[in-house]
Amino acid sequence: MAREVLYRKIANTIEGQIASETLKIGDKLPSIRTVQKIYEVSLNTVKQAFLELESKSLIESRPKSGYYVSRSFSRRLAVPSVSTPKLSEKAYQPEDLISRVFDTLSDSSITKFSLGVADNSMVPIAKLNKSMLKVLRSMSDSGTAYEPVQGSVNLRRNISKWSFVWGGQLVEDDIVTTSGALNSIFNCLLAVTQPGDCIAIESPIYFGILQMIQSLGLKIIELPTNPITGIEIEALKKVLPKIKVCLLVSNFNNPLGSCMPDEHKKEVVRMLAARHIPLIEDDLYGDLYFGTSRPAPCKLYDEEGLVMWCGSFSKTLAPGYRVGWVAPGKFKDKIIRQKMLQTISNPPLQAEAIADFLEHGRYDHHLRTLRSKLYSNCLQYQRAVEDYFPECTKISKPQGGFVLWLELDQGIDTAALYETAIKHKISFAPGRMFTQHNQFNNCMRLNFGLKWDKQLDFDLKKLGQIVKNSL
Amino acid sequence: MAREVLYRKIANTIEGQIASETLKIGDKLPSIRTVQKIYEVSLNTVKQAFLELESKSLIESRPKSGYYVSRSFSRRLAVPSVSTPKLSEKAYQPEDLISRVFDTLSDSSITKFSLGVADNSMVPIAKLNKSMLKVLRSMSDSGTAYEPVQGSVNLRRNISKWSFVWGGQLVEDDIVTTSGALNSIFNCLLAVTQPGDCIAIESPIYFGILQMIQSLGLKIIELPTNPITGIEIEALKKVLPKIKVCLLVSNFNNPLGSCMPDEHKKEVVRMLAARHIPLIEDDLYGDLYFGTSRPAPCKLYDEEGLVMWCGSFSKTLAPGYRVGWVAPGKFKDKIIRQKMLQTISNPPLQAEAIADFLEHGRYDHHLRTLRSKLYSNCLQYQRAVEDYFPECTKISKPQGGFVLWLELDQGIDTAALYETAIKHKISFAPGRMFTQHNQFNNCMRLNFGLKWDKQLDFDLKKLGQIVKNSL
Repeated sequence: MAREVLYRKIANTIEGQIASETLKIGDKLPSIRTVQKIYEVSLNTVKQAFLELESKSLIESRPKSGYYVSRSFSRRLAVPSVSTPKLSEKAYQPEDLISRVFDTLSDSSITKFSLGVADNSMVPIAKLNKSMLKVLRSMSDSGTAYEPVQGSVNLRRNISKWSFVWGGQLVEDDIVTTSGALNSIFNCLLAVTQPGDCIAIESPIYFGILQMIQSLGLKIIELPTNPITGIEIEALKKVLPKIKVCLLVSNFNNPLGSCMPDEHKKEVVRMLAARHIPLIEDDLYGDLYFGTSRPAPCKLYDEEGLVMWCGSFSKTLAPGYRVGWVAPGKFKDKIIRQKMLQTISNPPLQAEAIADFLEHGRYDHHLRTLRSKLYSNCLQYQRAVEDYFPECTKISKPQGGFVLWLELDQGIDTAALYETAIKHKISFAPGRMFTQHNQFNNCMRLNFGLKWDKQLDFDLKKLGQIVKNSL
Repeated sequence: MAREVLYRKIANTIEGQIASETLKIGDKLPSIRTVQKIYEVSLNTVKQAFLELESKSLIESRPKSGYYVSRSFSRRLAVPSVSTPKLSEKAYQPEDLISRVFDTLSDSSITKFSLGVADNSMVPIAKLNKSMLKVLRSMSDSGTAYEPVQGSVNLRRNISKWSFVWGGQLVEDDIVTTSGALNSIFNCLLAVTQPGDCIAIESPIYFGILQMIQSLGLKIIELPTNPITGIEIEALKKVLPKIKVCLLVSNFNNPLGSCMPDEHKKEVVRMLAARHIPLIEDDLYGDLYFGTSRPAPCKLYDEEGLVMWCGSFSKTLAPGYRVGWVAPGKFKDKIIRQKMLQTISNPPLQAEAIADFLEHGRYDHHLRTLRSKLYSNCLQYQRAVEDYFPECTKISKPQGGFVLWLELDQGIDTAALYETAIKHKISFAPGRMFTQHNQFNNCMRLNFGLKWDKQLDFDLKKLGQIVKNSL
């Protein structure tokens, strides 16, 4: 067994014991030499395992004494409430708020908890460049000619192969490439809706999806969503007779971080299929799981070809490459047609470079590192929010992705708070951005995909103080 | 004066004399030594000028005798008629026909006069790669991060600088980049129309535009179009009260090759502005002029910000790069919003590589070579059609671009002819593809951007024979 795997195994075992409270806060860990003997590994391997646990703030070393459990998985702060969108209310758009947040994105002096992507330091730039250079040399036209409308065959083959991580049986012909998951959704919506049609979505939901749906003249029903298990199935059941299509971010939804349990996924697919309603499944965070395996998408349970499974490399690899895909089931021809009408085809270079990156196992390797960093950051943020924010703060418990959702005291207006925070060179995404209704005004989304360091800890402390001051 | 410019000056003078019939077919040219003395240049310069005229089939050398005019500009065949679209007729879509033509595009054994791009041999792959490698090295994130929604600043600056070739006064902030001219048009249509709105276009028109407009639920009015001067202004004037927007391919329209005279452009802009009707101007062929200077777009006469000037590098540089732009006038914010909703932003690598290519004068240099090749091919095709096709054939007289439009005998159905031609491994674009009405059934579009050689001449001969056989 490789050393890398060994140290992870040790770290995971101890982490499990902390999670199950077999090891409690303040407990002393066995010494490094004891662990070394138990596992029959080198001292360095054990040290690396302990280092990893320390980086996640799970244990700490005390000089001349050894390692101790420094925090438990039982959290002081509650999880946010299940959302209860106000269905009857007239829609009002938070456009100004979104513009104000976007306006600060290019200011490098600001700590951007508002960002919707992981930090650039988490992108494997040098390795991706290797693939890009290889592709530039090996393609006879160096990517200057049109690729097929459906997309690069190499990329489609590798995406379909990659679907095996969740038990998918896709083949290259099932996939259509796009310029990102948002672009996949746009194509899906144009393929299956007409202006005036009704669509059911989670609430809160990523504002980009909300704006896109509105621009197409569709009517939106925001449904109650549980911060742990995702959309409330009973609520969805009630609106089925009204809707033409449903859109769900099934795994590590943005902004809640919720992940639908397999049973919910099965049930939703079954319910929709019974009425021949297509499901647009946005699964762009699925590969960023913190658990032991990748959660399956609803697509796994799709027998009728009604699930349009959308994914992307923007959140896991390189946002600027603009490479996404959709496995559109029975709507494939319509999707290909939409793509052709709008842009003919995608640029081949990025598609081929990513195909090469996947083909040679570099994506898998990169994801292991990325997930580990994100999980460690998630724990750091949760610890910081517990330490620095008011007692009444509720905090989400994402099992993947890179965003946290905070529910503050009912009296706090995070849109107003934003103006104060930005004066302190801190930005976040106010909750009101994620809905068409007048709600989530006391919520905020924080990106934990930023590079963790003392400054970031300090900025979270400052933000917590700003929240406290506004109480 | 540089030698390159000198030989062109000599070639242009002689070409002008042939055009004005000062020199007629069969006339002997002055000897190389005589020309050398007149212009006070080197022998090689004169030889180069004669070589250029020979490559255009305008002159030919006879052993031990000298050079002779081998063909004139006065053509044997007529120009196609002004189109008279049947306005009242119910629309019927040529989808099947378009699919049949597209299905043969990947078959390399077929001579594809049906193609909508110039041959790959005309793409400066090695030089573009230099720019691409430079960009990969110089960008700190190597193009993995999002670029601004409006597009690369470098590219926008260079596109705006390039607008000086037609007297444009654009600045970088006037431009929004897109993934090609078709994508520019899509964004423009979404920005200024609602389903059910009416749009005026030329007829015949590129089928991709036609399909896109239909997919958006707009009503199309196809207007009479002159193969030399473009849309008929009086016809446009009559429908102004009905239309929400107008779309014109002002320079070297596909498939007719027509180019609107400046006076027409001015008048159209004035007419539309009087009614506040936006004009979507698709100018993707404008840089491929055969004359002495680049024709201006309608945008030059736009005082109200109503002209959305769309362009692209797909037809002039690298189709697969998927880089286009629009200068949307007063609709800029709407266009940026549409772009953000659909795809967030474009991949930076291709944008930066093209910006570098423009910045260092390589685009200008490449276009000179490309235009010269295309013009030479155009003359070869016209000569071949005159030689091999029936007497009654009418042939367009494009002053730029790379497509020819043929009008055959009324009894010929080019859709049926296509099936015969494809058996002989020759494809072309039947006229019926370029309209929603039952017309142009006796027309065809030929791409003259293919690499000229004996085989191509032979294939044109074969195609002419197929036409003759069907009479």
